[in-house]
Amino acid sequence: MPSINPCFEQLSPRYIFPFIEQKLAELQQTTPEAKILNFGIGDIAEPLATSIVHAICSAVQEMGWRSSMRGYGPSTGYSFLKEAIVRNLYAHLGIESKDIFISDGINSDIVNILDLFAPTNRIAIPNPSYPAYKDACIIEGLHRSLLELPCTRETGFLPRPPSEGCDLIFLCSPHNPTGMAFTRMELKEWVEYALRWNALILYDSAYSCFVNSEDTPRSIFEIEGAQKVAIECCSFSKSAGFTGLRCAYMVIPSDLEIKYSSLSLQTLWNRRQTTKFNGVAYPIQKGALASLEGKGKEETEAQVRSYLYLAQTLSQGLRRLGFTCFGGRDAPYIWWRTPDNITSWEFFDLLLHRCQMICIPGEGFGSCGEQYVRLSAFTTAPSVQEALDRLATL
Amino acid sequence: MPSINPCFEQLSPRYIFPFIEQKLAELQQTTPEAKILNFGIGDIAEPLATSIVHAICSAVQEMGWRSSMRGYGPSTGYSFLKEAIVRNLYAHLGIESKDIFISDGINSDIVNILDLFAPTNRIAIPNPSYPAYKDACIIEGLHRSLLELPCTRETGFLPRPPSEGCDLIFLCSPHNPTGMAFTRMELKEWVEYALRWNALILYDSAYSCFVNSEDTPRSIFEIEGAQKVAIECCSFSKSAGFTGLRCAYMVIPSDLEIKYSSLSLQTLWNRRQTTKFNGVAYPIQKGALASLEGKGKEETEAQVRSYLYLAQTLSQGLRRLGFTCFGGRDAPYIWWRTPDNITSWEFFDLLLHRCQMICIPGEGFGSCGEQYVRLSAFTTAPSVQEALDRLATL
Repeated sequence: MPSINPCFEQLSPRYIFPFIEQKLAELQQTTPEAKILNFGIGDIAEPLATSIVHAICSAVQEMGWRSSMRGYGPSTGYSFLKEAIVRNLYAHLGIESKDIFISDGINSDIVNILDLFAPTNRIAIPNPSYPAYKDACIIEGLHRSLLELPCTRETGFLPRPPSEGCDLIFLCSPHNPTGMAFTRMELKEWVEYALRWNALILYDSAYSCFVNSEDTPRSIFEIEGAQKVAIECCSFSKSAGFTGLRCAYMVIPSDLEIKYSSLSLQTLWNRRQTTKFNGVAYPIQKGALASLEGKGKEETEAQVRSYLYLAQTLSQGLRRLGFTCFGGRDAPYIWWRTPDNITSWEFFDLLLHRCQMICIPGEGFGSCGEQYVRLSAFTTAPSVQEALDRLATL
Repeated sequence: MPSINPCFEQLSPRYIFPFIEQKLAELQQTTPEAKILNFGIGDIAEPLATSIVHAICSAVQEMGWRSSMRGYGPSTGYSFLKEAIVRNLYAHLGIESKDIFISDGINSDIVNILDLFAPTNRIAIPNPSYPAYKDACIIEGLHRSLLELPCTRETGFLPRPPSEGCDLIFLCSPHNPTGMAFTRMELKEWVEYALRWNALILYDSAYSCFVNSEDTPRSIFEIEGAQKVAIECCSFSKSAGFTGLRCAYMVIPSDLEIKYSSLSLQTLWNRRQTTKFNGVAYPIQKGALASLEGKGKEETEAQVRSYLYLAQTLSQGLRRLGFTCFGGRDAPYIWWRTPDNITSWEFFDLLLHRCQMICIPGEGFGSCGEQYVRLSAFTTAPSVQEALDRLATL
């Protein structure tokens, strides 16, 4: 009889997002007339931009003609997309197209990259953070010596370099769930930490398109020395509304100091991906390309601005109502302190039943998320207004 | 400094398919006028069926309207696709839609499923076989006690149940690379073996659409008792030309005997996928749906018939020229004995340089593949004719 990976027993029995979906479904069943306002899962609220729709349809049509059909693509992505990413986002930082590896999502990348590392490594993870970081470490058996990096009011809701060393560090900026982003100085401290301790930073840059503060980097590679110690994970999910299409990429610089015998991390990742993954659909990569340039870029940038506007409206509204909240300036998330010291799940239930409003309890992202809930600004202006109206009567 | 997963050192330094691609690129550079005939990688040669093109475009357009936009889909696939798979392929076998898990490819599934198992398990792998089975076991640290199942002329180029027990078994029928398929009796022996030894069969059914012999099952679940001991992996890559679109599914029966405390394998896989994967693009799933019913089914079945016809033309032609070959009856692959006992790589070079013809050396699939090469019938009628003409002058 095959033995099961015993690490599965260490996983928390419920994964937060499906659990919230279930709560929502229950409410819809018991109170079908409720008009539910969903500020929960960070999913897009705007339809796909017209240029992206056109680009994908045209690529699928190409595949329907003998002269332009395509089968398997390169496991790590088409050059046209890699080159456009470099041209539009990284050329000034010295990143080249061979450093770009296309995939179906940051979620896949951040967990799959762990394949490359031995289970003896010490990993640092922010608390609270996106639950997949920790769960992936558990499944891979890498959780035996986790170092938790508290993100509390005292730390500015972002992780700070600890006094001890570690091998791998998950960082995310703008941070999910707190909606706060590193300034240049703060990120520089992390790069210096990694250089000092020979650690590798796995930098989740999923929300970088929302950065608009001047002193806040959009890429970790804006910091000198980062190319020796960091991998950056980016996605089209939030910048171009690709949550339902699936396209992302990882930047693995050639200058990384970590090597395995003579093998670079690029070589190892390439080997991992060619063995375990067959690449992203050609039409989806064409859609991603369309979002980077010309009209597609304009359309998707307008969507990002509208989410940011909603985040600001929402946080200003909450403050006017006397609540305390953070984030939302360079991120689509608002980190909302629960009133009267109630727990995040109590506040979740209160908002659900009294205002028919979905949020994510901070505790679901880690113990330091207790007494906060996350609101997502991936929503519409009328929903924000309606939420503020309902909260005013609470 | 992070330590690298030491299992990577055990991987063979070159993965066969990219290596062949490189050889091809070299020839194209040195002899740009060569008209190369590619019978190598098992990629499709027919363009996407019209109904699939329409279904995908229409789904992308839906995503472009506010009223019908879609973000994240379910991690394990949309119900519309699961239900259509059951309705068209599994209803008579007692499989239900909750047993179906959609993914981006069999390659991903067969390697990711290993996440669920402890590295102490004994795994049986056919030799020769699709290289990802073994490489995935290596990366996951599951290779320490591999049991190789020889597929030689004596075994009919298919694996036979060994005399000793094991925990997990990779089977593939029709088999890649030998192009041979289990009869009902042969597969029954494997199910009985698994029941006797409490083993779990990971059944790769990628080429089942090519089965046309009467006594050859298309699904392992046609064998009584298989639902207690087998998981089946299927794909739209070959049945509907989805190699460049990426959609597959796994059937995990509810009746499986293997459990982990009270957790079924369905529950564990669901937890793995919701943590590590965000599902397949909505338009791609709509395209897969289109291939299962009505006009899309007719179009894709016609493609499969045309590949099978080419496989038969090719194998008959080779035999007429005095060569020895196997497979190609219920599979798109022909297993071609090298002449004069030369090695598979020598024959590869000979065919490449003398006939500008690409095949895959059998040794790339395992030591028992030595002295054979694999030809793929994912090609066109003029290429088959041209290949036979060139070989006649060899």
